[in-house]
Amino acid sequence: MTNIDLMKSLAQAGTTKAVLLVMDGLGGLPREVGGPTELEAAFTPNMDKLAREGSVGLVNTVGMGITPGSGPGHFGLFGYDPLEHLIGRGALEAVGIGLTLTELDVAARGNFCTIDQNGLITDRRAGRIPTVECARMVSLIEGINLPGVETIVQPVQDYRFVLILRGPNLSAALNETDPQKVGLKPLKVRPLDGSPEARKTADLVNQWVAKASEIIRDESPANMVTLRGWSTEPGLPKFEEVFRMKAAAMAVYPMYKGLASLVGMTLIEGLTNIEDQLESLQHNWENYDFFFVHHKYTDSRGEDGNFDAKVKEIEKVDTIIPRILELDPDVLVITGDHSTPAVLKAHSWHPVPIILYAPGATRANPDVTGFGESQCLKGALGQFNASNLMKLITAHAQRQTKYGA
Amino acid sequence: MTNIDLMKSLAQAGTTKAVLLVMDGLGGLPREVGGPTELEAAFTPNMDKLAREGSVGLVNTVGMGITPGSGPGHFGLFGYDPLEHLIGRGALEAVGIGLTLTELDVAARGNFCTIDQNGLITDRRAGRIPTVECARMVSLIEGINLPGVETIVQPVQDYRFVLILRGPNLSAALNETDPQKVGLKPLKVRPLDGSPEARKTADLVNQWVAKASEIIRDESPANMVTLRGWSTEPGLPKFEEVFRMKAAAMAVYPMYKGLASLVGMTLIEGLTNIEDQLESLQHNWENYDFFFVHHKYTDSRGEDGNFDAKVKEIEKVDTIIPRILELDPDVLVITGDHSTPAVLKAHSWHPVPIILYAPGATRANPDVTGFGESQCLKGALGQFNASNLMKLITAHAQRQTKYGA
Repeated sequence: MTNIDLMKSLAQAGTTKAVLLVMDGLGGLPREVGGPTELEAAFTPNMDKLAREGSVGLVNTVGMGITPGSGPGHFGLFGYDPLEHLIGRGALEAVGIGLTLTELDVAARGNFCTIDQNGLITDRRAGRIPTVECARMVSLIEGINLPGVETIVQPVQDYRFVLILRGPNLSAALNETDPQKVGLKPLKVRPLDGSPEARKTADLVNQWVAKASEIIRDESPANMVTLRGWSTEPGLPKFEEVFRMKAAAMAVYPMYKGLASLVGMTLIEGLTNIEDQLESLQHNWENYDFFFVHHKYTDSRGEDGNFDAKVKEIEKVDTIIPRILELDPDVLVITGDHSTPAVLKAHSWHPVPIILYAPGATRANPDVTGFGESQCLKGALGQFNASNLMKLITAHAQRQTKYGA
Repeated sequence: MTNIDLMKSLAQAGTTKAVLLVMDGLGGLPREVGGPTELEAAFTPNMDKLAREGSVGLVNTVGMGITPGSGPGHFGLFGYDPLEHLIGRGALEAVGIGLTLTELDVAARGNFCTIDQNGLITDRRAGRIPTVECARMVSLIEGINLPGVETIVQPVQDYRFVLILRGPNLSAALNETDPQKVGLKPLKVRPLDGSPEARKTADLVNQWVAKASEIIRDESPANMVTLRGWSTEPGLPKFEEVFRMKAAAMAVYPMYKGLASLVGMTLIEGLTNIEDQLESLQHNWENYDFFFVHHKYTDSRGEDGNFDAKVKEIEKVDTIIPRILELDPDVLVITGDHSTPAVLKAHSWHPVPIILYAPGATRANPDVTGFGESQCLKGALGQFNASNLMKLITAHAQRQTKYGA
């Protein structure tokens, strides 16, 4: 029995409500040996109180020693083991820029690249052209017509774009066209299985690439494309079906709305800041059972390497905690999708501090006086894999039956 | 390699002896914030000493965040991963009332229900008739004859009974007859696969239901039956074959004797209280290598919501510890099959405190001064899954070889 099937078999309907507050990239490292991490340096009286009164621990959203991308980190928190549910790069890039995938879609992540007069790649990223140039390049090729399918092309960031083919009987069983080395030609797309769908899709994509190449051959530095990460809508079991909780996502950034949409959460649109998110939470409190609230900037400031600014973002989130508590959630979980220590300026593998605040959450360790990595190490939850988090949430929400008689 | 196969491959014969003392539903929660749990409130000088001198930790008998039923909780402690070894409800109910399943048996859990004049279910539990009425109803239908098989019907509790068909070439691949909703007719039994065994068994069961229905149609409120949880003797690898330890079960309640019997432990019969169990342990000390001693009432008082009475049960068990130690076991493990916090009046998902007392058991943390949830959180065993417990027991009992050269 898979973890999802297990959780589905145990889930019970109920009237309780749970909030999952994700501070992106929450976990950190000390700036100097023996110093505090970003979370430990932050003044967080509200979260400290929850840490004292609830359970704390450290969560590995993908697995110990694994640095999660944003997609896997969130899928882990949502209960979908990221090592089991592999989501193609094309699908992630598409939902990441706010596109909604349909069952008719095959999506690929595209790169603009540079080829020489012999067609050999000289730069796989076309000099890392800026996003605005990428958008201009996309505008040149977005009108390409293919027989029987709609094509959607959207810029992502720098030299990256998304290509979607939308139509009946398509397949993502295609090879990547990036040869991964300069000095080689982009590969033709070939079907990876013998299905008529894959053959048809490969043919369509090769037509599209030929037309795109024809259009941009005289541009510079980007004059060719490569495609990879072929994927369809991943067909994840829907959150509400698995956990019997109607879920709403309050996220500002398209990527996180996209991730929530892949598990079937309802997206609350038009939110631009934490105040919007809080008002939306209040406004929608009666309409849903589970609320995913995402704060991006903790990660952004970590990626910037700006320790102090990340501290400030954590403190900003702390100030809204009392207003969340006024709603009287049955379960409140505060954590991150991965660590982004400012000293590393990047996502990292370090387990993420977590608070589980609910009736029945064991405090167990009176030494825990606040929310931070060192304190979480002593917490009742220990260090655990995110595949257990939704079990803990539904259990504490009194929405889980016992296993076996 | 499965966990059982791994343990089997490592198990060594020996002359050492291990005692697994299970206080059912041992784990608990504080009655008030910051207060002690039941175990922490209990005066347990003997277990405290073992906690100081042995290793302590917290064990998840099924998995983190999962609330174990009695069956899975015990199978976890016995080394049989409850998520891998699914035991049907019919088999559990049968062994739970002291029936022994043979290889010829197909067992189902039955409910008495109420139907109206059109055959539609109006109450799936027949008004939750008391056990004595259930026994009377069973007496009406226990004599039903079927061609070529023996039928065994036994009351369980309230509206629940067990039906066993005993004969050659039977199958448990049958659907449930409870439509799970009132206003519908009980379903016919259908074979879930195309095997002749399933077709034959379905036919026999439908005959039995028709005869039972005919007999009890004018009774009230129970005038019909539903059947579910079809299962055969689960065929678990036997404890002695896996661990090379001859095992005896000293349990008072039929359910726990039944669980022990499913893994092939020898049942010591006629025990009615803890004093009996202790005397039996002394009396049988030379005859076995592994002793499962089960104390039920910690769970019962937890289910009652009686914190103080659960404390007293724990204290009662503490008083027998010196007499167990007089036998000089090589390994003594004290734990529970799950938590049953009095404040929840039910089984819960909280990990269970555990002591492993043996030569070679690391104390590791001098802060551990007694046996309780908070202290166990700091213990050498950490929080771990019960799938590792029998490895720890056989290792500390010097009955396990190293893995690989």
